[in-house]
Amino acid sequence: VTVSDLTERELIARIQRRLPPSPSWMPVGIGDDAAVVEPVRNHLDVLTVDAIVDGVHFDRRFSPPEAIGHRALAVNLSDLAAMGASPRLALLSLALPADLSVDHFERMIDGLARLALTHHLHVAGGNLTRTPGPLTLDVTAIGSAKRRQVLTRSGARAGDEIYVTGSLGAAAAGLYVLQSKTPASAGDMADCVERYFYPIPRVRAGVLVGRNRAASACMDLSDGLADGVRQISAASQVGMIVDANALPLDAAARGWFEIHGHDPVSSIVAAGDDYELMITASPKLRRRLRAAAQTAGIALTKIGVCTKEPELILQREGVAIAAGGSFPEGFRHFR
Amino acid sequence: VTVSDLTERELIARIQRRLPPSPSWMPVGIGDDAAVVEPVRNHLDVLTVDAIVDGVHFDRRFSPPEAIGHRALAVNLSDLAAMGASPRLALLSLALPADLSVDHFERMIDGLARLALTHHLHVAGGNLTRTPGPLTLDVTAIGSAKRRQVLTRSGARAGDEIYVTGSLGAAAAGLYVLQSKTPASAGDMADCVERYFYPIPRVRAGVLVGRNRAASACMDLSDGLADGVRQISAASQVGMIVDANALPLDAAARGWFEIHGHDPVSSIVAAGDDYELMITASPKLRRRLRAAAQTAGIALTKIGVCTKEPELILQREGVAIAAGGSFPEGFRHFR
Repeated sequence: VTVSDLTERELIARIQRRLPPSPSWMPVGIGDDAAVVEPVRNHLDVLTVDAIVDGVHFDRRFSPPEAIGHRALAVNLSDLAAMGASPRLALLSLALPADLSVDHFERMIDGLARLALTHHLHVAGGNLTRTPGPLTLDVTAIGSAKRRQVLTRSGARAGDEIYVTGSLGAAAAGLYVLQSKTPASAGDMADCVERYFYPIPRVRAGVLVGRNRAASACMDLSDGLADGVRQISAASQVGMIVDANALPLDAAARGWFEIHGHDPVSSIVAAGDDYELMITASPKLRRRLRAAAQTAGIALTKIGVCTKEPELILQREGVAIAAGGSFPEGFRHFR
Repeated sequence: VTVSDLTERELIARIQRRLPPSPSWMPVGIGDDAAVVEPVRNHLDVLTVDAIVDGVHFDRRFSPPEAIGHRALAVNLSDLAAMGASPRLALLSLALPADLSVDHFERMIDGLARLALTHHLHVAGGNLTRTPGPLTLDVTAIGSAKRRQVLTRSGARAGDEIYVTGSLGAAAAGLYVLQSKTPASAGDMADCVERYFYPIPRVRAGVLVGRNRAASACMDLSDGLADGVRQISAASQVGMIVDANALPLDAAARGWFEIHGHDPVSSIVAAGDDYELMITASPKLRRRLRAAAQTAGIALTKIGVCTKEPELILQREGVAIAAGGSFPEGFRHFR
């Protein structure tokens, strides 16, 4: 049975069955021309949208449907986390190829619904369409934050320290394992594959950092650390020196890249799919930031400093190994 | 030059160039992890998302790029109108095939930006991705309305009168003309083609009807009148009798269907792409509703009544021509 055997209404019913009832602040949910929600008093709305496309951001041939649904929401939760916003609701716009089985459709929604529940996020509505092209999941997520708690990319200042949450590289290594069709058991790569399939958005860390005003800038590393460095430095008009030795590389990922003849640092810095947060903070905020990370239960590693000189430098033991134009690029969606 | 020759940042810059500056209620617009907006005091947020896919909802081979951009936003504005909500902002998520020319990309954004400006709607952000599949435009639109002004599908009661705005069938006839490759000049079909390419969402009518509390239920006819009748009657648990002779069929469309051997009523009732509003209102609200339509500058035609008996009947001169299971269906996205 494929999705083209069911009516739109039947497909929507199968989504609704997987969702909790609408909360009281949502007077109109799924099933009308639009959803209606009450804003949070004294808060701003924080809005983001992200699409994932089969063959570009995931691969139906080796991704479990639950992982696809999880990813579609996780990428958006990560954006909200990077703004310091608490997740509230999402709209799902799904473009379904006719050959998608109803079983896969349901499992995809299960994966998404499970992550939504974890973060107290409600699905307020959406859209279903068929497509002659690849399976595409477009999710709009809306969160809320107080005005002074919003974290942007543009607040970093010279002298601020640069941090990342968690560890880097596991998802990229997991993806390589999947693409190379090496069994994940070889070299204990199962955790990396899991990290690729089920990225964990750092929602609690982002919210706590925002609430405690513990950062000058923040963004998520969906397109890799190199992209984060480029984006925050450009938006804040500062330079950055990143210490290659300080990077919290995932141990299994590092080993995998070494065995396969790639330099782990340059591979991992340029790779996307790490949904960690990159945070800048003045040294005065150091304690506050550490406390927020500890409360969120997440590792926090200082990896560099912001400089007045607007140059990007990756260095090892004080010696630049890449700078300026040769500083790595993140994942590129276009050219 | 195609979109794959530019970087994501260059494409975003070409979108921003076509948009007015962010309003003061949008402290963070395009360019961060998410957008940040102030809610409207004492209003609810009204949220909708709709995707249009090349080969399903439009055809790049005969649609001007401006019409594609226009349509992507218009379908969402129509949903906001049907809720009685004033448009406020949109997020654009575009999946671009590598062969899309930059010229077409820019003209598509021009078409969307022009319609946004007309309705004082601001683009707050979005997402760009490449796709190996068809051009897909996914737009999330957010409006606002006071709680008591929200129009839903579920408020129709037995005895309420059924109305539609504007006229029906022009867009469907225009699409047939394009698909049959008949020159639009034959039989003066240029207006119908224009109605298909540039549907006019009934934003002002919807807002005025909501603000004056002049309706018991409302929805837009994007999937055709038959779909509207089915949806409102199901949501409100009423039956409906629709008078075929009363339907405000577009004259050119009626002529075109007759000439081509189709019954105009059944063709038009089942056809999508009319972005008119279907409204139910108790007879006591008749004057208020007429006044709202007049202020909005739009025709309003009574086409039937809601009944206690939960049956759908299409009748002509008092005789049922289709009823129950044989009542027409609207446009079906799936089975």
